Amino acid sequence: MRIDFQCLPLTLDPSFLSQRTVVVIDVLRATSVIVQALSQGALEIIPVMTVEEAFSKAKSYSSGSTLLGGERGSRKIEGFDFGNSPREYTAERVKGKRLILTTTNGTRAFHAVSGGKEIIAGSFFNLSASAKRCLELGSDLLIYPSGDEGRFSLEDSVCGGMLIDRIIRQNAHRSNLTDASQSAYLLYQRFKDNLVEALRLSTHGQDLVARGFEEDLSVCVQVDLTDVVPVFREGVIRAFPIPSKKER
Amino acid sequence: MRIDFQCLPLTLDPSFLSQRTVVVIDVLRATSVIVQALSQGALEIIPVMTVEEAFSKAKSYSSGSTLLGGERGSRKIEGFDFGNSPREYTAERVKGKRLILTTTNGTRAFHAVSGGKEIIAGSFFNLSASAKRCLELGSDLLIYPSGDEGRFSLEDSVCGGMLIDRIIRQNAHRSNLTDASQSAYLLYQRFKDNLVEALRLSTHGQDLVARGFEEDLSVCVQVDLTDVVPVFREGVIRAFPIPSKKER
Repeated sequence: MRIDFQCLPLTLDPSFLSQRTVVVIDVLRATSVIVQALSQGALEIIPVMTVEEAFSKAKSYSSGSTLLGGERGSRKIEGFDFGNSPREYTAERVKGKRLILTTTNGTRAFHAVSGGKEIIAGSFFNLSASAKRCLELGSDLLIYPSGDEGRFSLEDSVCGGMLIDRIIRQNAHRSNLTDASQSAYLLYQRFKDNLVEALRLSTHGQDLVARGFEEDLSVCVQVDLTDVVPVFREGVIRAFPIPSKKER
Repeated sequence: MRIDFQCLPLTLDPSFLSQRTVVVIDVLRATSVIVQALSQGALEIIPVMTVEEAFSKAKSYSSGSTLLGGERGSRKIEGFDFGNSPREYTAERVKGKRLILTTTNGTRAFHAVSGGKEIIAGSFFNLSASAKRCLELGSDLLIYPSGDEGRFSLEDSVCGGMLIDRIIRQNAHRSNLTDASQSAYLLYQRFKDNLVEALRLSTHGQDLVARGFEEDLSVCVQVDLTDVVPVFREGVIRAFPIPSKKER
């Protein structure tokens, strides 16, 4: 299994994507929210690019079944039910509900890799489960950090590096890493004893602290809270496998 | 001084480039060759994109004044005077000569950043001199690894990280680093006691070993052999300052 790491969130060649499992990572905070919401029993999540699209999409479902979540400038959008903090997505609020989600980087990333063979949402919350699923699928792997408004993001690289660590412990040899995935792996090694340090050092982490979301940094580095692996197919993200009652 | 690091060798916005000092890095081996040739007294170096352009350009100069160097598939090009190993570029062969150079990644990178405010060729050979020159210029800095056929390259990132280390020791605070330059800096920290290990681990380093150029790896990690800083202006790379007789 060749493991590659996409340093910048670029549009990629569809023939390249169609051969690969793609793991989208947006630790701060879209994929953390997605994993959390599905592990708490949300029915499905529809990632959309714009606020207008979110409101318009919600109208096509029966009232009460669908909630709106996401952010602009890290803050909750007016008229939405949730912002972009995983802390908001409790079982009490999301169980059995459909979520429409729009965020600055994360939801964009899912659309950018929509040609992938299988598209997974990864975060620290479902690290080992994501690694296990990648190994089961067996295809070459592309780790796709959603980045920070088009720029390289440190926190997603460290999470990607930890995913690589979990995979190569089980199976692949380091010789199957590219220079980019090797570097993500080495960045993880640097922070493995203090993951929150990477988030505090990152531009986006510092920005969240400045905007009053400091608590989300320590929330988002919790490892292996769930076995849920969110899978994006035909515009919708659903849990694989269906979460157990205990997790809900 | 904001220090940024370009993870992938993309075409950039000219208005972004025009505000910045750009340091092009291609440790294996174009910028190592450029620094070496100029420190050995080569008159100037003209980087060109194609083999045809190299031959055609050479015809416009008086015979005997101009030599051809570079590689395709890491190997010397037929009809050329030099390949792409710094070991070939001795004072005896290059002093007072003009070089026309074409390589897979490095020469392309100079053309990609030709809109930079000042464009420097950096390598381990002229690490401290490059850092000193960046500090003198005082502009925001973009470190631009030439990459490996469009991909992220580990060895250039480690060299870029060492350049950042030299600069922040003198002047800038780490708060002026982006996530990308922070990561290059951390990768350098990982390999600082054994730079050649980074080159051996890199895809391009492994490729050079397989093609019989293993010796170039230990050659190219020599730090601070010269104070020469090659500067690219109007299509030509010249030494800044003019190397002393001792260096030649």
